[in-house]
Formats: sequence, structure tokens, C-alpha cells
Amino acid sequence: MKIIELNKSITESNDRDADDLRSKLKSEGVTLINLMSSPGSGKTTLLRRTVKDMDDVKIGVIEADIASDVDAVRMEESGAVAVQAHTDGMCHMDAGMTARSLGALGTDGLKLVFLENVGNLICPAEFDTGAAKNVMILSIPEGDDKPLKYPLMFEKSDVLLITKIDTAQYFTFDIETCRERALKLNPDIKVFPVSARTGEGMASWEKWLRGIVGDL
Amino acid sequence: MKIIELNKSITESNDRDADDLRSKLKSEGVTLINLMSSPGSGKTTLLRRTVKDMDDVKIGVIEADIASDVDAVRMEESGAVAVQAHTDGMCHMDAGMTARSLGALGTDGLKLVFLENVGNLICPAEFDTGAAKNVMILSIPEGDDKPLKYPLMFEKSDVLLITKIDTAQYFTFDIETCRERALKLNPDIKVFPVSARTGEGMASWEKWLRGIVGDL
Repeated sequence: MKIIELNKSITESNDRDADDLRSKLKSEGVTLINLMSSPGSGKTTLLRRTVKDMDDVKIGVIEADIASDVDAVRMEESGAVAVQAHTDGMCHMDAGMTARSLGALGTDGLKLVFLENVGNLICPAEFDTGAAKNVMILSIPEGDDKPLKYPLMFEKSDVLLITKIDTAQYFTFDIETCRERALKLNPDIKVFPVSARTGEGMASWEKWLRGIVGDL
Repeated sequence: MKIIELNKSITESNDRDADDLRSKLKSEGVTLINLMSSPGSGKTTLLRRTVKDMDDVKIGVIEADIASDVDAVRMEESGAVAVQAHTDGMCHMDAGMTARSLGALGTDGLKLVFLENVGNLICPAEFDTGAAKNVMILSIPEGDDKPLKYPLMFEKSDVLLITKIDTAQYFTFDIETCRERALKLNPDIKVFPVSARTGEGMASWEKWLRGIVGDL
């Protein structure tokens, strides 16, 4: 497992870099998914389960964090190819940082790559990484009011995964209220309530993933 | 309940502005606490319980968010004086923004003011707000590995509140492991495991608060 030390991309236009990266990945047949959420929402656990369930697809994972390599180590144990990217204190990934991380990962033979962005509901939504799709996670313990407080993240995401639904009985999260609030911000967002622990709802999410792999 | 629209402070030195604000508040006998955490860790619920338990102390709350006024409304219901500060999309509060929010709140007669910073474990740790003390929250569902991944937040905080401990049986969070990891980064950090729902541990936290009110 490699660790790559990143720093801010010096570039005229992140949007242009993102479009260039998207075109390059498309021509190579690699689908990049940008996965965003708060710290502790269960991104890595969700990915570990997804990688195990989809073991017929060769999957790579970029773990972006300010420090540590715990997530990349956990991902490799699940059977994914993984690289740990350190963001030099930065709260998000941009397209240049993503391109460098993909270089360190190596995409030969990979069909699907997840960028596990820095845990943060704000800054990552502001930077196009070049991914084909943006997926966000909101976990049951965080509360169903988050679309009201972090609207841009919901507006920029193609998919909302509501995770840790096996703990729903211990919290006051209303899935239908959350779905309505998300749809009000973004009528096209797809919502999948899931539990990576029990497997509930994972089949719908993985069906969506299979639908877009090599299909963009 | 007022809403104040903020934007970035144009200033030579945030650190100097923060020191100035700290001196001013000290001379006025107002203790400002900067409360930081991820989205959904239970900052508002913790504050509501604290305000109710300490109803002999006049408490003010600044709710900093990118959008919505749900938290300030909830705080006023608990008996605090509250103002909602909108950060114009920004992921943190700086000293100038805090000073303007205090102006909108009005501190006459207040002994204790909480700044509920934007939900984010990264950016708020980088900006001195002028608070007397920094307090961070980590909730049980977020996981005990967060000191490894967001070290600066733990280094900058005087207190770590481990919240939602009433849900500990449903998650794999080890409080002692988390305490050791936090103390390794910051040997002076005080750790209070609490549940705002059941009240467990709240007395120790409130005793610490009473110790610093008017005492700085």
C-alpha cells in the first residue's frame, strides 16, 4: 500500500482540469466515483462491503486523509487495490490531486475507482475532482436536518447513501423526511438507504454501480 | 432570533484580531467557548441540555452554519439567547466573524457564550476565533480512529466531549483507546464522556464549565 503526499494544485482552472481528467478516464474505460461525507459516516465500511460484494469487478480505492493510513490498510484487507493520499492539511481534493493519486494507484486493469474524499460536508462539494459521478453518504446518527444545513453537498451529488440504517431505532432520523429534503434541493438525486453491517439495501446501490461501470 | 449574514473578514492578522477579542471579552466578564465537531455529532443537543442544566447562568449561543436557522430556533426554545450566523458558504468562523456575531447577539448580562462553529473537523481548527477555550465533540457513531485522521482538531482543543455514549453498545467505539489517542496528541486535553439524552457524565462537564466562567 502506497502513501502519496499531495499539495495544492497550481492551476488556472480546476474545472478544466476536471473535464480533462474525466475525458481521459472515459477513454481508458475507468469509472471514477467521488465519495463524500462527514467524518465517521461509514465511508470505508461501506466501501469494504461493496468491494467484497462486487469481487468480479476489479476495484481501486484512493483514500484521501489529512493524516494516517488506517483506511487504505483496511481497504487492502478487503481485496481492493488502494493508495493513501495525504492532503497536506487540506480539507478537500481537487482534480490535479486526484490525477496524481490515480497515477500513484495505477489504473491498468481497473474498471471502477472510488475516491474516498476527505471527511467534510462542505469543502469537497466545491471542487470538481474529475469523477464521473458524485456520491454522498449521510449516516443515521448525523440527523435528517443535514440537507437544510449543507445544501451544496446534496445539490452536487448524483447519489445519496443513507447509511447505518441498522441503528435507526436508536436515533430520531426520518428517512422519508430526509429524502424529501434532498429531492427538494436536487430532484435528480438517487437515494439508497443501506446498512453495510447487515447488508440491507446494498443490492440496490450495487445494481446502480454496475449500471454505470463502463457505461459512461 | 436574529440571523446575521457574514462574509470573510478582511484583516491583516486573524491571530491579532483573536487576541484583541479575547482581551475585550475578558474585561467584560464574558467567557466565550468555541465548540467544534463534525456535522451531526450532537453539538446543539449537548448545548440544549447544558443550558437547561445551568439555568442559573445567563448563556448566549451563536449558531454558525452555511444555511438554515434550525439550530438557533432550537436553542431559543431551551432558554438561551441565540443568534444564527450564516457564513456565506465558508467552512469555519474567524475572529472578525465571531466579533460581528457577538455584536448581533449582544453580550450585556451574559456570563457564558458558546460559539457553535460550522460542522467540520478540519477548517475550524485552523482559525483562532478569540474564544477563551476550544471544546470539541466526537460522537460514538463516528469511531475512535478520528484522532489519527484529524490530529489538529485534537491538538487545538482544551476539552474533548465524547457524546452519545448511551449508544455505545451499538457501535465499536472504545472510549479508552480514543482517550489515549487524544492524549498522545495533546497531553493537556480533558476528556468527558457524556450523553445529553440520559444526562450521564453531564455533571463533570458542567462542573468544568462553572470552574472557568468568570475565572479567565
